[in-house]
Amino acid sequence: MSGVVGIYSKKRNDVSKIIYYGLYALQHRGQVSTGIAVNNNGFVDYFKDLGLVHEVFPKETMERLRGNIGIGHVRYATVGDTTTVNAQPLVVGYKRGALALAHDGAVVNFERLRDELEDNGAIFQSQLDTEVIANLIARYHKDNVEDAIIKALDTIKGTYGLVMMTTDKLIGARDPYGVKPLSLGKFGEDYILASETCAFDTIGAEFIRDIEPGEIIVINESGVKSIKKDTNSKKPCLFEIIYFARPDSKLDGKSIYLSRIEAGKELAREAAVDADIVIGAPDSGTIPAIGYAEESGIPYAEGLIKNRYVGRTFIEPTQELREQGVRIKLNVLKENVEGKRVILVDDSIVRGTTIKRTIEMIKNAGAKEIHVRISSPPVLYSCHLWMDSPNRKNLIAAQMSKEEIRELIGVDSLEYLSIEGLLKASGGEGFCTGCLNNNYPISNDIE
Amino acid sequence: MSGVVGIYSKKRNDVSKIIYYGLYALQHRGQVSTGIAVNNNGFVDYFKDLGLVHEVFPKETMERLRGNIGIGHVRYATVGDTTTVNAQPLVVGYKRGALALAHDGAVVNFERLRDELEDNGAIFQSQLDTEVIANLIARYHKDNVEDAIIKALDTIKGTYGLVMMTTDKLIGARDPYGVKPLSLGKFGEDYILASETCAFDTIGAEFIRDIEPGEIIVINESGVKSIKKDTNSKKPCLFEIIYFARPDSKLDGKSIYLSRIEAGKELAREAAVDADIVIGAPDSGTIPAIGYAEESGIPYAEGLIKNRYVGRTFIEPTQELREQGVRIKLNVLKENVEGKRVILVDDSIVRGTTIKRTIEMIKNAGAKEIHVRISSPPVLYSCHLWMDSPNRKNLIAAQMSKEEIRELIGVDSLEYLSIEGLLKASGGEGFCTGCLNNNYPISNDIE
Amino acid sequence: MSGVVGIYSKKRNDVSKIIYYGLYALQHRGQVSTGIAVNNNGFVDYFKDLGLVHEVFPKETMERLRGNIGIGHVRYATVGDTTTVNAQPLVVGYKRGALALAHDGAVVNFERLRDELEDNGAIFQSQLDTEVIANLIARYHKDNVEDAIIKALDTIKGTYGLVMMTTDKLIGARDPYGVKPLSLGKFGEDYILASETCAFDTIGAEFIRDIEPGEIIVINESGVKSIKKDTNSKKPCLFEIIYFARPDSKLDGKSIYLSRIEAGKELAREAAVDADIVIGAPDSGTIPAIGYAEESGIPYAEGLIKNRYVGRTFIEPTQELREQGVRIKLNVLKENVEGKRVILVDDSIVRGTTIKRTIEMIKNAGAKEIHVRISSPPVLYSCHLWMDSPNRKNLIAAQMSKEEIRELIGVDSLEYLSIEGLLKASGGEGFCTGCLNNNYPISNDIE
Amino acid sequence: MSGVVGIYSKKRNDVSKIIYYGLYALQHRGQVSTGIAVNNNGFVDYFKDLGLVHEVFPKETMERLRGNIGIGHVRYATVGDTTTVNAQPLVVGYKRGALALAHDGAVVNFERLRDELEDNGAIFQSQLDTEVIANLIARYHKDNVEDAIIKALDTIKGTYGLVMMTTDKLIGARDPYGVKPLSLGKFGEDYILASETCAFDTIGAEFIRDIEPGEIIVINESGVKSIKKDTNSKKPCLFEIIYFARPDSKLDGKSIYLSRIEAGKELAREAAVDADIVIGAPDSGTIPAIGYAEESGIPYAEGLIKNRYVGRTFIEPTQELREQGVRIKLNVLKENVEGKRVILVDDSIVRGTTIKRTIEMIKNAGAKEIHVRISSPPVLYSCHLWMDSPNRKNLIAAQMSKEEIRELIGVDSLEYLSIEGLLKASGGEGFCTGCLNNNYPISNDIE
Repeated sequence: MSGVVGIYSKKRNDVSKIIYYGLYALQHRGQVSTGIAVNNNGFVDYFKDLGLVHEVFPKETMERLRGNIGIGHVRYATVGDTTTVNAQPLVVGYKRGALALAHDGAVVNFERLRDELEDNGAIFQSQLDTEVIANLIARYHKDNVEDAIIKALDTIKGTYGLVMMTTDKLIGARDPYGVKPLSLGKFGEDYILASETCAFDTIGAEFIRDIEPGEIIVINESGVKSIKKDTNSKKPCLFEIIYFARPDSKLDGKSIYLSRIEAGKELAREAAVDADIVIGAPDSGTIPAIGYAEESGIPYAEGLIKNRYVGRTFIEPTQELREQGVRIKLNVLKENVEGKRVILVDDSIVRGTTIKRTIEMIKNAGAKEIHVRISSPPVLYSCHLWMDSPNRKNLIAAQMSKEEIRELIGVDSLEYLSIEGLLKASGGEGFCTGCLNNNYPISNDIE
Repeated sequence: MSGVVGIYSKKRNDVSKIIYYGLYALQHRGQVSTGIAVNNNGFVDYFKDLGLVHEVFPKETMERLRGNIGIGHVRYATVGDTTTVNAQPLVVGYKRGALALAHDGAVVNFERLRDELEDNGAIFQSQLDTEVIANLIARYHKDNVEDAIIKALDTIKGTYGLVMMTTDKLIGARDPYGVKPLSLGKFGEDYILASETCAFDTIGAEFIRDIEPGEIIVINESGVKSIKKDTNSKKPCLFEIIYFARPDSKLDGKSIYLSRIEAGKELAREAAVDADIVIGAPDSGTIPAIGYAEESGIPYAEGLIKNRYVGRTFIEPTQELREQGVRIKLNVLKENVEGKRVILVDDSIVRGTTIKRTIEMIKNAGAKEIHVRISSPPVLYSCHLWMDSPNRKNLIAAQMSKEEIRELIGVDSLEYLSIEGLLKASGGEGFCTGCLNNNYPISNDIE
Repeated sequence: MSGVVGIYSKKRNDVSKIIYYGLYALQHRGQVSTGIAVNNNGFVDYFKDLGLVHEVFPKETMERLRGNIGIGHVRYATVGDTTTVNAQPLVVGYKRGALALAHDGAVVNFERLRDELEDNGAIFQSQLDTEVIANLIARYHKDNVEDAIIKALDTIKGTYGLVMMTTDKLIGARDPYGVKPLSLGKFGEDYILASETCAFDTIGAEFIRDIEPGEIIVINESGVKSIKKDTNSKKPCLFEIIYFARPDSKLDGKSIYLSRIEAGKELAREAAVDADIVIGAPDSGTIPAIGYAEESGIPYAEGLIKNRYVGRTFIEPTQELREQGVRIKLNVLKENVEGKRVILVDDSIVRGTTIKRTIEMIKNAGAKEIHVRISSPPVLYSCHLWMDSPNRKNLIAAQMSKEEIRELIGVDSLEYLSIEGLLKASGGEGFCTGCLNNNYPISNDIE
Repeated sequence: MSGVVGIYSKKRNDVSKIIYYGLYALQHRGQVSTGIAVNNNGFVDYFKDLGLVHEVFPKETMERLRGNIGIGHVRYATVGDTTTVNAQPLVVGYKRGALALAHDGAVVNFERLRDELEDNGAIFQSQLDTEVIANLIARYHKDNVEDAIIKALDTIKGTYGLVMMTTDKLIGARDPYGVKPLSLGKFGEDYILASETCAFDTIGAEFIRDIEPGEIIVINESGVKSIKKDTNSKKPCLFEIIYFARPDSKLDGKSIYLSRIEAGKELAREAAVDADIVIGAPDSGTIPAIGYAEESGIPYAEGLIKNRYVGRTFIEPTQELREQGVRIKLNVLKENVEGKRVILVDDSIVRGTTIKRTIEMIKNAGAKEIHVRISSPPVLYSCHLWMDSPNRKNLIAAQMSKEEIRELIGVDSLEYLSIEGLLKASGGEGFCTGCLNNNYPISNDIE
């Protein structure tokens, strides 16, 4: 998962500042590294480094990054990068000039394409599949960059919300099934592309529309032009709805917040249970818990308080201190759970380790009963369209039955929302449900 | 406002680590500077600097701070300190050895006492009233430090949650009316003092009791001894309940969370209004909003999403960008407020600037009606017991009528919780209500 | 100008530490950025950043960089790099595995080769000519990397002291005329390549021999093998002798220190003048000044004291303060020059700005006469083999006659060492004298 | 040892900038911490921290430090301070206003005075003897600060070059025998006090005169006034001449450079030996070596090259690497010493460890003979007037005979300059020679 932003302006030469706030709104999509590239009168300047947006870009750097076109990126990584080698945007020079790319997604046939390119002499300086895309565009570029991009994206198989910059254009592209999100907005007379609409709200831009599956749009001084579109039905990733996206974003027309509330309500209908209180696992369980409470009529309460001050340099407690009871991230509101029958709502169970610890805290605080309700179905398959997806052997629902999990985490009952319930809450059929039922729009076969 | 922690251990020599996590739990009480002092076999070592706990204390510093007694402090300051001169603990050498002090509170007769001490040749190296306390103890110390502390605290007039360390004792003191909080906990065989009980939960300590008004307790290898107590009735600061304290703390036996829920419910009873939705102003309005919703039967929803990634080095948008619509901290959940009659609950209005901006955002998102409900009474008086209290001319309720404020912030109705309602929600009479009705337990006269 | 180091070890896996000290010994060759790459059992890890060796590599980074083969680089740049994009080593993946390169030198036909590579689809991520070399090796690599390197270095035209690392070999190469230095040493059973022999002394390695012009050597578990050599006569850069190299290095068998002393003596013979004292312009004029003094019999003295504490973050005095007399880097020893006839020896005059300021200080201190003696001939041509060479219009000797310069800098006499004198002092004919007489071994024509 | 600077200006409010460059010129007197205090229209602002001048004062801090009077300090400490508690200037508030002090020196009766002050209730926040001086001034201040300072300095027994600042005066004081240096200069219409005259040269100020033994001078808008003077004969510390002071300073009228040259010449006369070459131990032996060479007629050469890039964060080689020959600070110029009879000149032997290592390097480089000549007499007594003076048991000359030392360091001969020779070179009788013959102007008895 990553977040991308791109801006084209006719007049302003400080688009980097708008990108800065756009990236900041997308910070939840990646905290490992970030970067901004700008076009300064035909010269591409950029800066990228490990860290959060406000850490990587001090004022002096922002002053330097002048230009009327720009793209930015925030990067998520399961294994912590220790160098900037995989930070984006990727900026390259090639036969036809300069190209900068910021990519959210995964190229399934990455290995094969990299092999082919290496057979033809290409060298690679990162582990990014984006570097494969850049090489393909460079090789395909004969008359115009648009044709090269169309051909390059035809060659790769995978998912992408992609923003690219040449010295006179901003180009956006979304994968053929729209698995990854990408939206178009307007900011005065300027255009903005972003992974999520909350970036538009942050910078005061107006939402225009979502990029269509397989669509490529080009923004330059003539305005916005769509140069390609696919006829595939849209299959956005359901986990954007469940977990990734910010609740104040709208994804392909659906409000994330309302979908999550609705999932909570649906869950209350599908898996009712008698109890005194509904609480959410912070922070992701809060919204479905509110929905569950509303539908069930059981009062909603905050059951766990999260410490907001954990920073990168925080010293984790030693094992010894943990055993002595030091617990730094969460605290139970004992008065809300002691002697109560508690419904704990969370958005998903992936590995199962976090919820296990949370349940222990609630138990120790004296809850009489604990009923876990998950506002999404069991995650059964590792996703090849999301690079940081956990291995199947780490997916608890792929390894154990519901009853086994219930016993393991030690609760009175455990229920998941059904696929149908989730789709209903999310507003329809049009989603990728691969991780739930192995039904992926893009297969993992590399023919 | 500040946060203090103190630990006495018979056996462990790593109390600084426990203090670290204790301060981290109290970080909401002060983010400007922090410090830890430890007793290492009769030698007092300490470190303090500007910044958050995890910023000030890297691993190497923590390794160095060894000892079996220790105290820590987090400091809040309205005017940003730019040097460490006012960071605490204050560590001094004097006739009888070493003394370290960490103080939450305000000495009302500070100026006069400092003058008197200066008349007798004292020099001062900070603006801290704590330095006056240290001087008094040093001068009064004849036979034992306990008598000197009793005499020094008799001399000052003001509020304090105070932890002090000599080379063989940990000493805690609370002001004569208990305006400032201080509690005692137990951690294995060791004792801990802290401003709030959430610090006990974080380190796995057990709550024993609150320190009584005017009480001084001494902890050493013989255990805990109370050496003085006042007969005053307790008058803790109501704003601890309303705003300062963490919801998962218990203050003098009252759950902060439940008091805030109850204040919301009371408010719903006192100031009902027909509406479609109840939302809280983040973060402090969330809990009373939940209470209001529960009591009124109007659904609770999240109306505003806060960006969690603002850091110290974040570049604030320029005025120009603000005017272009850049808003970085909050975003409205348009789908929740558009076309709706909205009740916006907040815990207090002090200057009125924040809520004005919030209301504008909700209006722009298309709310049909906005009804503001405040879960505390109007703040009419500046507090001399809280050093960072705003000047009266900045207190909007002291300058304008309710109707004028309603008009200024542009809402359909505005109601406050009554003093009686708040006291009822908070569980009784025993509070300082000075900022609401000028009825202070400790006067501002310096005879 | 840059500095390179490479190490191959059979047994130790901490070669990065040796490289660290080797780079530190070469720090005078470049202070802008530095990097180290290591081979950790077939996996290439690396770290590079802007800054000095001790700034870029904290202990934790050094702990991480484990491996038995490694290369390092320190980079000089006339225009300050503001990103790490041009930091070396350059590490790439290609068809046959991984390759890391550290390069001191300049590729004259860089533009043409980059164009050709781009015609064939290559993309570039830096401004480094080293990236061209890496692309060529990747394309030429059929059966073994040695042949590819030979072919790639045949393709480029330019200068290089080059160390390269694969996952099982350390490879060193020197340009066909040996313009750039590269030497081989032994450290226990391990081999080391370095730009200068002072790096061997620092790590306790033994000098074996200089790499020959056009030679390529391969070091692996079988030992050292020379796989190619040119028959060109050696033409090392004279400016290594005059200025670049550290005085305690030996370059192609010549002691830099003794060559500089000899240049000073030769200068005393060629351009004698009656005077009271000989001083050197710090630091580069010190050694020839000692030689001049010894030969002339006129006493040597220190005339100018340099402040050793200037750091990267030092605040330069404003123009206003400069005019008020603030001068931070140098101070005159008034007692040594006042009322004296002074011979000021420097190693070279390039732009003429530094020596002008130095002379002003000596004059203000009351020198009776000032005679400038330069231990190298006038620099008349900008060097295409040294990327950071000043443009010809900035070379004062290319723009003004000796008499005009003398007048401009305001001294009683000005004399240079002759080319013959300098070659004699340096031990023979075998040097590139291009910047003095436009006689370059490698032309600037890109046919 | 420390360095102090003070400036009084009628018109400019940026004296902190001048102090910055002044401290930078005195950086050799202390690298542990530094600070600047300024008077900004009656408000004293200051900043101090661990580190070098350019590290501690970024641009923003310098912008903040505005005022027309200011003092600064650089601090040396044998035991590395890990907090800023002992950084100076010491800034205090007291009965009569604000006072800032910067002190170079040692108070011999510190413990007794601190005891007395503590008996009267004083508390101490540092280990600085300066804090005793501040307390005394505060207590003695009745009508004017001048009388209080006179009385306070009469009370203490010890050495000081002291600059003090009130909100309208700059005050300088030198100890009764002038052991510590302090000089007065003029900068336009403004006055400057500094430990050494090289600070005047750096900022373009004109030297006026040295402060006399026991003199106190007051600088305010009426100009400079001397308010007290002692009749003692001057006894400045000989080690300022030998080692502490910068060679381009003049101390009480004597040029440090010429005194060191003269000491070298005197040494050549007292302890001649037949040899091929004279080298200096870097950096302090360089100047006497030049003098020795000139007097003896034996050629001077550089024998050891020092690496100039060691920074605070440099990773010291492990013992293992040291044993393998890694040596990072010095390198021998083999060609200068191999097969030669070498005279190695150093300014002093204190512990003997450094010269031992240097001699080993020269031996390993193949010197035929090594003759050590020290341009000062044996250091036999630990100095109570210099806080960081080594304990007597660590003074090698106090523990071993000259012959034993010669054998230990393994050289062919070892000779020291006589006390008479050194005094002659330094220009007369008027010096403290306590560390050489136990003849101190201020005794160590605390009656």
